[in-house]
Amino acid sequence: MLRVGLLGAGRIGQVHAKNIHLDARSTLVAVSDFVPDAAGALAGRYDAAVRTTEEIIADDTIDAVLIATSTDTHADLIEKAAAAGKAVLCEKPIDLSLERALACQAATRDAKRPIMLGFNRRFDPNFKALKAGFDAGEIGKGELLAVTSFDPAPPPPSYVKVSGGLFRDMAIHDFDVACWIFGAVPERVSAVGASLVDPEIGALGDVDTAVTTLHFADGRIAVIKNSRRAAYGYDQRVELLGSEGLLAVGNVNETTVARALAAGVIGARPEHFFLERYARAYVAEWSGFVAAALGEAEVPVSVTDGVNALAIAEAAAASVKSGAAVAVTG
Amino acid sequence: MLRVGLLGAGRIGQVHAKNIHLDARSTLVAVSDFVPDAAGALAGRYDAAVRTTEEIIADDTIDAVLIATSTDTHADLIEKAAAAGKAVLCEKPIDLSLERALACQAATRDAKRPIMLGFNRRFDPNFKALKAGFDAGEIGKGELLAVTSFDPAPPPPSYVKVSGGLFRDMAIHDFDVACWIFGAVPERVSAVGASLVDPEIGALGDVDTAVTTLHFADGRIAVIKNSRRAAYGYDQRVELLGSEGLLAVGNVNETTVARALAAGVIGARPEHFFLERYARAYVAEWSGFVAAALGEAEVPVSVTDGVNALAIAEAAAASVKSGAAVAVTG
Amino acid sequence: MLRVGLLGAGRIGQVHAKNIHLDARSTLVAVSDFVPDAAGALAGRYDAAVRTTEEIIADDTIDAVLIATSTDTHADLIEKAAAAGKAVLCEKPIDLSLERALACQAATRDAKRPIMLGFNRRFDPNFKALKAGFDAGEIGKGELLAVTSFDPAPPPPSYVKVSGGLFRDMAIHDFDVACWIFGAVPERVSAVGASLVDPEIGALGDVDTAVTTLHFADGRIAVIKNSRRAAYGYDQRVELLGSEGLLAVGNVNETTVARALAAGVIGARPEHFFLERYARAYVAEWSGFVAAALGEAEVPVSVTDGVNALAIAEAAAASVKSGAAVAVTG
Amino acid sequence: MLRVGLLGAGRIGQVHAKNIHLDARSTLVAVSDFVPDAAGALAGRYDAAVRTTEEIIADDTIDAVLIATSTDTHADLIEKAAAAGKAVLCEKPIDLSLERALACQAATRDAKRPIMLGFNRRFDPNFKALKAGFDAGEIGKGELLAVTSFDPAPPPPSYVKVSGGLFRDMAIHDFDVACWIFGAVPERVSAVGASLVDPEIGALGDVDTAVTTLHFADGRIAVIKNSRRAAYGYDQRVELLGSEGLLAVGNVNETTVARALAAGVIGARPEHFFLERYARAYVAEWSGFVAAALGEAEVPVSVTDGVNALAIAEAAAASVKSGAAVAVTG
Repeated sequence: MLRVGLLGAGRIGQVHAKNIHLDARSTLVAVSDFVPDAAGALAGRYDAAVRTTEEIIADDTIDAVLIATSTDTHADLIEKAAAAGKAVLCEKPIDLSLERALACQAATRDAKRPIMLGFNRRFDPNFKALKAGFDAGEIGKGELLAVTSFDPAPPPPSYVKVSGGLFRDMAIHDFDVACWIFGAVPERVSAVGASLVDPEIGALGDVDTAVTTLHFADGRIAVIKNSRRAAYGYDQRVELLGSEGLLAVGNVNETTVARALAAGVIGARPEHFFLERYARAYVAEWSGFVAAALGEAEVPVSVTDGVNALAIAEAAAASVKSGAAVAVTG
Repeated sequence: MLRVGLLGAGRIGQVHAKNIHLDARSTLVAVSDFVPDAAGALAGRYDAAVRTTEEIIADDTIDAVLIATSTDTHADLIEKAAAAGKAVLCEKPIDLSLERALACQAATRDAKRPIMLGFNRRFDPNFKALKAGFDAGEIGKGELLAVTSFDPAPPPPSYVKVSGGLFRDMAIHDFDVACWIFGAVPERVSAVGASLVDPEIGALGDVDTAVTTLHFADGRIAVIKNSRRAAYGYDQRVELLGSEGLLAVGNVNETTVARALAAGVIGARPEHFFLERYARAYVAEWSGFVAAALGEAEVPVSVTDGVNALAIAEAAAASVKSGAAVAVTG
Repeated sequence: MLRVGLLGAGRIGQVHAKNIHLDARSTLVAVSDFVPDAAGALAGRYDAAVRTTEEIIADDTIDAVLIATSTDTHADLIEKAAAAGKAVLCEKPIDLSLERALACQAATRDAKRPIMLGFNRRFDPNFKALKAGFDAGEIGKGELLAVTSFDPAPPPPSYVKVSGGLFRDMAIHDFDVACWIFGAVPERVSAVGASLVDPEIGALGDVDTAVTTLHFADGRIAVIKNSRRAAYGYDQRVELLGSEGLLAVGNVNETTVARALAAGVIGARPEHFFLERYARAYVAEWSGFVAAALGEAEVPVSVTDGVNALAIAEAAAASVKSGAAVAVTG
Repeated sequence: MLRVGLLGAGRIGQVHAKNIHLDARSTLVAVSDFVPDAAGALAGRYDAAVRTTEEIIADDTIDAVLIATSTDTHADLIEKAAAAGKAVLCEKPIDLSLERALACQAATRDAKRPIMLGFNRRFDPNFKALKAGFDAGEIGKGELLAVTSFDPAPPPPSYVKVSGGLFRDMAIHDFDVACWIFGAVPERVSAVGASLVDPEIGALGDVDTAVTTLHFADGRIAVIKNSRRAAYGYDQRVELLGSEGLLAVGNVNETTVARALAAGVIGARPEHFFLERYARAYVAEWSGFVAAALGEAEVPVSVTDGVNALAIAEAAAASVKSGAAVAVTG
């Protein structure tokens, strides 16, 4: 039984708390949050204690911590928890600064227990089935990967301001998907972006619509389309063209109901946003972490994976500015 | 080159005239219609002559006639044209009376040239692909066939009055599909019907909504759903369950365009009605007839096929009244 | 908090035990099974006690029992548990005999706490969305309902022998769906069936392939297709034609992955069988029962609903034999 | 009646000859080809004369010419035919050299009769429906356009050698689609390409897999994915994200038949290649040209459209080499 401390009781912390509770091999023992009431409410739901982050990290009876705090605290907490001998599952990204992420990578290189990044797509049953089919040779050699990744609605400017921008905040998931599927890190990145959805996002120096192209050393190409807005909901699709066919992940829809009316045949919308779309992925992500923390399996997403995705994001942001392809330096 | 006389210049006659003209191996030489202007307009379009039906049948330079007149004239014209040595393609049904159809079958048994009934579904590329896949053993032994056949809107009561009723007029196509796919005629038929779409149809003693079940001697079952109204257009689908899988024909849609909107994902409607849905089938039907008339191939739909479908329709109509399964006597 | 005793620790009992455990408002306190080890294993997983069925029913600290025993014990256990003042959720059917089910209905008419039948389809999010759309008037007046319900593979003859036959065992779910969607019980039933899948099923006097047509008093029609075998998995679809359109529930597939290969575009299979397909339905069913047991909501599926579905099954079995439509007497 | 001379009796010339013949308002009067037998065979099929190109252009009784010769002759023939007062429909591209195309544009600026380029996508009913829905405001303001355009199999190296390369030969269609849908020419282009399909293509200095991103002045983005090989057939899809939704054109499949088997649910392949996929588009293209040639409508695809698409292709090819975004200069 893995004894777990949860750092951060916000929206995603609540998802993880439930999954920790439901997993037969883990138990939630403590919760911290800089808003004590939030920690209290969540801890109460699962018979856990409210503690400070420091107390949780210092507690030798706690095996693992799940870091679901704000991004600017991730790297510090990873380092502290690793130093205290904890297994760590940290929400992406490691940090908004590639330099800081690299330092964190260096500092935790010799950690005794697994450190895992929370890239949820890797645990989605559909993405996993595409990856498995590809690895099994169903479409031969991979050539051209295309990711569509649109959010249902843009975040408020206050969020955009601290988000690190579309590439570090949102596209980073898709960059990780590309690296994971191709089993490689691209050499160069070219990107184009614009603020078409919300002028305030543009005023903050960010983009809300972007296309990023990843050039792999052996010629393979990945292209990622991002938008902060899709009126019909969360659009999360992947297509991989190979020498012998194409594998595609379609959206997960709210229902399988179709309405045939005079206006056309109306199918359901995709699941609205990531909490619904990736609900099953969060369960599998946690169980993958538990297996790694218990020493039964390799850690499925490493700090290096987090560094690589961030390096691509940094290159993409630079490419939008320069108009030229930018080398990825991870 | 097959020289063809067309009897009947109405809506379906016009479709056939165009296909006769476009087929490289047939030419439209004469058109008759009880409305001389209709015959004239159509003949003019294709450099054909306007003639009386009698003249066309008597003309030894004409090889084939296409009968696209009103149903009550079909049996007579088939018999006369066959007697005059013409190859004949006649629109379904042979007659509204099974007795009369049987007489026509007897009278034409020794016809020298092919007589073919116009069951268009057999020439639709999708229905043909299902039939071919089934015959090739793709789903093993056939067990349960389901036909969905809904018109977009009910015909006017004036048409219903002379139509012979839903079973003889509309479901007869689906009965033929079942016999064709299974390669057999059912032993018994049970049907239930109601007038739910238009009370005037009920007042005329007809139904506008029906389910017919065909029982084949070896236990196989076919079920046919009919409605005179589908707000979204012409619904023409078939599903065949076999021992090793299921083959399904979906609708042919107006476009492949989908609209993802806040209201859902909206696909195109099915092609609106039979002229659009079966446009390609009419072309293939004609070319199938030409091949038979030129002695290159068996006639693809025989008078016996027409008699069988009518016998099922008669049994279905009787079953709605009696509530019991009715034997098919063809 | 609803304190629950579970009668029966078999496959479906295990599903329910998990859902009782996961629901925040219920707790599993005791399990009985005629195989003590089965009860012990399941009870151990959820910190519940192993008790006899009699002890559970007699225990005043237990609020509710879930009956997941063999069918022949259902009616007795419903009556005993109801007499002991328990809220009851019983797996379908009440009994294989309509007479016995009617007696059970009479005996429990004045039960103080809710008695609910486990018709899982009513709690499936897709079926519920169809029902909600229909009730909201999206397709106008309902006319023609079609249910496709195929199992992936036939049960062993030993099961068929005690199952009550295809209509009472399998189609009964679909009969309930029809009554639930239309909000009415059909007047008459006609059915045709055959043994095409497994000759042993036929040798036992049962059918494995069937089409049942339900005639409602106002002319509406429902048609149900059943087969004990679909090589591609569990096929569970519904289509409802109304005056202004059609509502359809499609299958729930294992993934949203498509493979475009030289052989065609291959989509995922449907979820394999009822435990997967209706996993979410079982969760919602239990939470619906909890709400009823706590007095917050009407019981969503009543004993009368169970009697009606059984009456239809009995009529269908009689119709297969007689070839005539049979009146439903519930 | 438009009297037409056809220059070029190859594969695409044969398609056009048939459509000229079938259109009620045009007639094929002469055919030329540098292989006299090819011209003769085609002319014979439609009662047309075999003539030299020069004779056709000089013949005052011929109203229009259709240029279906090899690419290197296009610009010259456009100029000569225009100078002779003919209406012209020329297969794309105008030339492989942007400079030559610009010269042709200048030389024909004052042509008295319409000159039209054969960009077939604009006449496909599905692409047209997307464009019409977008123009009607169905998805609000356009933001991000994505074109998938894969050929079923790579052309032989001999063709690649004279093709002008993937961008000028194949992607040029997609560049025109982007300009047409957005009603604008992009400012800059970035592209990445590789030879992953056939090393011989790479040896010739060409790519067979590419992603091109078009940057429009107002921030809108179009991204085009090209591959010379898709094992499942011709993949021709478009998706347009707008402020209020997404419009998507799906593939046109060979049939609507699905096979549900143990291996999954298998749908039909897309139509194999352009002759099948765009068969209806060629008919509509010709009828659009006839209307323009008869002075009833604007020319639907102008020489300027051809120049713009070529300018984008040139920029894309340059961007692959430089790694930087390249300005479009048309």
